[in-house]
Amino acid sequence: MERILNSETTKKIGQEVTIKGWINARRNMGKIVFLDMRDRSGIVQVVLVPLELDEASQAIVGELRPEYVLEIRGIVNERGEKQKNLEQITGTVEVLAKEVKILAAAETLPYDLDAELNMDAYLDNMPFNLRANKQRAIFKIQTALIQGFRKHLEANDFTEFQCPKIVAGATEGGANVFTVDYFGKKAFLAQSPQFYKQTMVGIYERVFTTGNVYRAEEHDTNRHINEYTSLDFEMGYINDYKDVMDMVYATLQTMVANVKETCPEEIKLLDVKLPEFINPVPQMKLKEAQKILEDEYNEKGCINEPDLEPHQERQICEYAKKKWDSDFLVVTHYPVSKRPMYTYEDPADPGFTGSFDVLFRGTEIITGGQRIHEYDKLVNNMIKFGLKPEGYAYYLQAFKYGMPPEGGIAIGLERMTWQLLGLDNIKKATLFPRDRTRIDETLNKA
Amino acid sequence: MERILNSETTKKIGQEVTIKGWINARRNMGKIVFLDMRDRSGIVQVVLVPLELDEASQAIVGELRPEYVLEIRGIVNERGEKQKNLEQITGTVEVLAKEVKILAAAETLPYDLDAELNMDAYLDNMPFNLRANKQRAIFKIQTALIQGFRKHLEANDFTEFQCPKIVAGATEGGANVFTVDYFGKKAFLAQSPQFYKQTMVGIYERVFTTGNVYRAEEHDTNRHINEYTSLDFEMGYINDYKDVMDMVYATLQTMVANVKETCPEEIKLLDVKLPEFINPVPQMKLKEAQKILEDEYNEKGCINEPDLEPHQERQICEYAKKKWDSDFLVVTHYPVSKRPMYTYEDPADPGFTGSFDVLFRGTEIITGGQRIHEYDKLVNNMIKFGLKPEGYAYYLQAFKYGMPPEGGIAIGLERMTWQLLGLDNIKKATLFPRDRTRIDETLNKA
Repeated sequence: MERILNSETTKKIGQEVTIKGWINARRNMGKIVFLDMRDRSGIVQVVLVPLELDEASQAIVGELRPEYVLEIRGIVNERGEKQKNLEQITGTVEVLAKEVKILAAAETLPYDLDAELNMDAYLDNMPFNLRANKQRAIFKIQTALIQGFRKHLEANDFTEFQCPKIVAGATEGGANVFTVDYFGKKAFLAQSPQFYKQTMVGIYERVFTTGNVYRAEEHDTNRHINEYTSLDFEMGYINDYKDVMDMVYATLQTMVANVKETCPEEIKLLDVKLPEFINPVPQMKLKEAQKILEDEYNEKGCINEPDLEPHQERQICEYAKKKWDSDFLVVTHYPVSKRPMYTYEDPADPGFTGSFDVLFRGTEIITGGQRIHEYDKLVNNMIKFGLKPEGYAYYLQAFKYGMPPEGGIAIGLERMTWQLLGLDNIKKATLFPRDRTRIDETLNKA
Repeated sequence: MERILNSETTKKIGQEVTIKGWINARRNMGKIVFLDMRDRSGIVQVVLVPLELDEASQAIVGELRPEYVLEIRGIVNERGEKQKNLEQITGTVEVLAKEVKILAAAETLPYDLDAELNMDAYLDNMPFNLRANKQRAIFKIQTALIQGFRKHLEANDFTEFQCPKIVAGATEGGANVFTVDYFGKKAFLAQSPQFYKQTMVGIYERVFTTGNVYRAEEHDTNRHINEYTSLDFEMGYINDYKDVMDMVYATLQTMVANVKETCPEEIKLLDVKLPEFINPVPQMKLKEAQKILEDEYNEKGCINEPDLEPHQERQICEYAKKKWDSDFLVVTHYPVSKRPMYTYEDPADPGFTGSFDVLFRGTEIITGGQRIHEYDKLVNNMIKFGLKPEGYAYYLQAFKYGMPPEGGIAIGLERMTWQLLGLDNIKKATLFPRDRTRIDETLNKA
């Protein structure tokens, strides 16, 4: 008989069905055994009564443990009103089993799937720990975010493209880059798709790409991972950085709306408070933010710093929350010296760039801005930054043959997930996190 | 005035509009200059008549060359019936310019964008060459393929996930793997997401992931690249490999349908012959294919070979085309020794696996099959293959705690694009191809 999903059992009352899934929990009530069976659609309760089962099935009931994979043939029955209220999780129907087959056995679990673990124990056992409801929910929401990103951009005429990650040079400055042995020559893992997405503006005008990027950062904090998912777009024919800012803020709204629409159960389970979007998004220049930090948060001397410290990001977000009730704040006009060489200087504010960070609930999740699109200006800026334009000849082709005014952004997917869900560590928002000492398992100390 | 797209000019006849774009072509007719202006929506003709232009605009007309980026204000006029027939490419309306501003200059093009180049010249100048209509069309179609892949799987309850690419060991056997310096320790670039997607079956039952994978293959043929896009899915609770085969064949149909729906212009431009799908898909065992090759193609002695040679793939596809008029052929039951250690042996055909290749118009574009899901069997198979199970402890967790019968596939996106479009080299179907001697530019010989 063809398998049906657990969620379909409610439409089959009184009928014989076949379901397949994992044992989520087992409860013994005298000779009767109750199994919560889990599949991709949810959970259904199965009742094992000795007299109803065939002989072979009776013989294996004793063996059945959580995470065993079963095929069960049985009759769908409606549950009593009283029972329905008691056992909300497993629904309004149950399956009275006639036959039980083991598709795969499972070892005894080392601990309860919902146990609170320290970070190392959590990471050491990811392939198992990811089966917990909480983790399953986190990464469902992450998927809704990336799918919302694509959805918004496709609807706005952006063309997706696939970007290489083995590169010949560092894009975002020389530090923090992993080296690859490329047929005996030295290559690198891309820190971002920056050069390629700018190039692609010359082809399709509006482009996006999603994929892995790499930062060989030595420090191990709760907000850094060494390989992460970057959601990037780049758009041509902008007037200035504000067009980019508006597009990314609208994109965020579609991403969050997609979570709301596709993950109602997960939102409930994780008690997620989705952000409201204030329009237009609150924004201020870095200098203005620093003035507020000095005046209201006693952060003396921060005004000439080129960036905000992590605790200052939290403070200025707190300020934005109080003042505008906004979970988002855009900080603009970082100094030229602090941003990469391709960043556009705002002609109205010399020394400062038409670039921005989007802060979300206390941390930066997005960097973006206008880029230099004029060939001569870009070459001169490379020289100013102490770089050799000859080393960028390939990239510079994109500008030599006519590049419109353009800009773009990069969203850290794991970082956004982490902040949206209020997790204590970004590694909890990363499926298989790599850090300084770990690729799946702890790296050999040798 | 707010910019409109070229495609919107047809709705603005008699009105003043602002358009922005690249000069695709310039034609002089005495004192009148015609520009074909290109933007992401297509091409529109602009007419520059000295008397209609303001003084500043008149002064720059002489300078304008292909790939200059312009902002043009002008009046939309309908073109005469005769003209419409003559100049189909640039549409039914034209813009009589009032004002022309240069947003960015372009150097004189080194050659015509549609020029036929040798492979090195083509690759050396990709950022420029990609602007040609032909290349723009190729990668639009590639995007439609990947988006069709996602669309089909989302509709079939698959959950997308993000997969790391820095790994601690080789997944698909030890050869052909790039090494990464990971904080002074040796790591590798993933050859596939195999272990992770299998693990994720334990979490979501049906999963897919798309992303870059790496093969450090030394040989430089027209069908190999060293970094490519792998479209992967994996599904649990299958009966056998045929469930996987049916799912991938249905996925291919959605991918091709998505190309048909979203790329009509590109299909015309590249003269693409989209495949028809014969249902069910023709399939045969490797042994059967070899028998046909011996009998009908004089390929003596191929019957005990573990795989088909490239020319044999072409021959057997030719056979399938003649016999069933099918562009696809599924070849199943490769020997256990030829497939990776996780491949499932068909109990009905000992020594041969429940695995398959999908051949498309003469070349393999997909590999898939059922995997070993029982923990003990998998451990034993590792030992049989001369591998140490201790080295796979992390991966093995997924099987220790109950894995349903499962299988999956990987599609090479560039290879599928290449075959679909009938290109002479897979590098033409790869945005920024890496090969033994090239990462964008030719690698320094030093």
